[in-house]
Amino acid sequence: MPSISKRAEFVPLSPFRKLVPIANRVKAEGKKVYHLNIGQPDIETPRAALDKLRSTDFRILEYSPAEGILSYREKLVAYYKKFDIAVTPEEIIITTGASEAIQLLFQACFDRDDELILPEPFYANYNGFAHIANLNIKPITCVIEDGFALPDIAEFEQLIGPKTKGIFITNPNNPTGCFYSREDLEAIADLVKKYDLFLFVDEVYREFCYDDQSFYSVLNLKGIEDNVVVMDSISKRYSACGARIGAIVTRNQCLLDSVIRYAKLRLSPPGLGQILAEATLDMDDTYIETVKEEYDRRRKVLYKRLQAMPGVISYRPGGAFYCFAKFPIDNADNFCRWLLEEFDYQGATVMLSPGEGFYATPGLGLDEVRIAYVLNTVNLEAAMHCLEKGLEAYPGRKSLKNPVLSGESLIPNR
Amino acid sequence: MPSISKRAEFVPLSPFRKLVPIANRVKAEGKKVYHLNIGQPDIETPRAALDKLRSTDFRILEYSPAEGILSYREKLVAYYKKFDIAVTPEEIIITTGASEAIQLLFQACFDRDDELILPEPFYANYNGFAHIANLNIKPITCVIEDGFALPDIAEFEQLIGPKTKGIFITNPNNPTGCFYSREDLEAIADLVKKYDLFLFVDEVYREFCYDDQSFYSVLNLKGIEDNVVVMDSISKRYSACGARIGAIVTRNQCLLDSVIRYAKLRLSPPGLGQILAEATLDMDDTYIETVKEEYDRRRKVLYKRLQAMPGVISYRPGGAFYCFAKFPIDNADNFCRWLLEEFDYQGATVMLSPGEGFYATPGLGLDEVRIAYVLNTVNLEAAMHCLEKGLEAYPGRKSLKNPVLSGESLIPNR
Repeated sequence: MPSISKRAEFVPLSPFRKLVPIANRVKAEGKKVYHLNIGQPDIETPRAALDKLRSTDFRILEYSPAEGILSYREKLVAYYKKFDIAVTPEEIIITTGASEAIQLLFQACFDRDDELILPEPFYANYNGFAHIANLNIKPITCVIEDGFALPDIAEFEQLIGPKTKGIFITNPNNPTGCFYSREDLEAIADLVKKYDLFLFVDEVYREFCYDDQSFYSVLNLKGIEDNVVVMDSISKRYSACGARIGAIVTRNQCLLDSVIRYAKLRLSPPGLGQILAEATLDMDDTYIETVKEEYDRRRKVLYKRLQAMPGVISYRPGGAFYCFAKFPIDNADNFCRWLLEEFDYQGATVMLSPGEGFYATPGLGLDEVRIAYVLNTVNLEAAMHCLEKGLEAYPGRKSLKNPVLSGESLIPNR
Repeated sequence: MPSISKRAEFVPLSPFRKLVPIANRVKAEGKKVYHLNIGQPDIETPRAALDKLRSTDFRILEYSPAEGILSYREKLVAYYKKFDIAVTPEEIIITTGASEAIQLLFQACFDRDDELILPEPFYANYNGFAHIANLNIKPITCVIEDGFALPDIAEFEQLIGPKTKGIFITNPNNPTGCFYSREDLEAIADLVKKYDLFLFVDEVYREFCYDDQSFYSVLNLKGIEDNVVVMDSISKRYSACGARIGAIVTRNQCLLDSVIRYAKLRLSPPGLGQILAEATLDMDDTYIETVKEEYDRRRKVLYKRLQAMPGVISYRPGGAFYCFAKFPIDNADNFCRWLLEEFDYQGATVMLSPGEGFYATPGLGLDEVRIAYVLNTVNLEAAMHCLEKGLEAYPGRKSLKNPVLSGESLIPNR
């Protein structure tokens, strides 16, 4: 039998990969599992857009242009204007989800062994995309006690070396739910300008900023127009993860040309998804406002429940629909597995993502988890019951006398 | 401004890339251009499948499993059975077009500088996928005078070295339209077995075999079950290029596991496209039979017309909807550009793909073109008129006294 590639053996895997077969087994055995481990919302895709897709009449489902359907890109221009972002259709390339956007950018911007600075914890699949593109991630550690605020800019600067080509931010953040303010981004912009780096920002959660915080896009930063690259996606905004429609937005013409060279190899982004995506832009803002209110309710439930659990360190997430929590436990991997295999509360349990896989630095996140608040408040409350009871019953629970793990943990996010 | 990657400067481009802006310009100026340069058929996507997609009721367009929707893979099992191919749903991974299938396989099977043997001329984007995966294509040259039949197996064997990991065949072939028989494939199978190589076969045109030739899938070869990998796509079969739905089919469990590691990084293939693809499998064979008859009519028109053009070398293509032709001209790049820029016949001209870009060996294909018969017979006849008149009028036409370029060229494909 011919052997697979050596590199394939080192593809980084999802933080909860090992738990999936266990979850499937216990569900088959009748246990109810509340899935807070994945970013698949239970929110309905906008019916108006689905209906428009269903009524669209065409006879041939042709390749779209490699850069995406022009009428869709034109409507995106109007969409971005709502965030005071002024771009042209030519500065937008439609991709097969934000996942492909990142892969195209990594090929177009990085050569082998180039370095990318990335605050950790970060979305775990960035590791895989870096692996494929042979670039090195230089993590800069954010800590839960600070609500995962960005470290001082001097810490970023220390990481910059001759191989550094960019800084990557996810705003609002998956997996931490952290929101970065205009001031946060301007501080990074100074560094980006000083060292002439790319500034990549994944803005797929831009609609989901809470507590009256106003989203600020890096596309509005002055003096680094050619450095800034934004990744986007309709997956979360319109609960249309299966559409696989994302985008790259940049004013850097060389980069656009380069990305298109790669994009042409795969011919075109999904055509039906683009029709749906374009239809979402014919809607008013009611859907988005309603969805944001729903996530905000869930966020408050989650925050309140985590704050009430003894020994748990949490914070008020400012955006997206994720948060991290630190538990008084020996090991989050073991705890998450135990929750599935050994535990139930009235026939139910909860599935979480162990934190370690979201860090590049070994040894971090071992007592942390990521929680995605993708369930309605009734199910979320039930899931929190399970978590609370589980934390009480878990054999690997640490004593709360350990001062590192005890005490008041209300840290409002900035 | 930060610079793009060095590797991005070397992404291989489409053979007709430089002609596209010229074609757009002359069309804007009012010239009619018959596009025989691209594999975008004018055939309608099956209405029954589109209607089914339109009437499918779901509330959330969720991620599908990374390997694709199970019910679709189950129906594919039944589809493959029609070709006597026995596979299970677990041996099928749904991809974002055959383009992604190839990219996933190149990552999963090859390490840097590994070698792949590929008969040329070949689909030009294979160059780009090899570039991204850092593998080296070792071309084995097929010649038009042989109707692009595969060279003797000894020639394949000469190319096999310590870095060789696989042989890649497209059957029926894009860009040559060549059909490979069971005997052709069994000869390669012997070699694959002897050296324990992967045998990758792109079978996206399996429905389109003419002259009562019966398609034989490499999945039926005995004794090399773990070596064989098939790539598939609904793009051409159902004229649904924009759906972006392909597949990898193999019985090699290690390879399936490895591909899935990569596939999980991009979360899932397009959801709407999968619904459409599944709907095509609820239809009977009428659509495919009608489409095949239509392509066969076009093939006969094209063949007859090319055969009647003095000095043109052509052959009867056995499958797909492409053929190559060798013209009595100085240079196909110049000729194709001249057809667009300088020539018209009654206000119309024809766009072809220069042949050079389909070869990896420098200097080959300079007087050849690829012709895609993706237009109905009326338009195809009109396009052939333009070509015939263009060949007569072209200033770079070679004298027919050159014996290499003259003479009878009816070479039936095997």
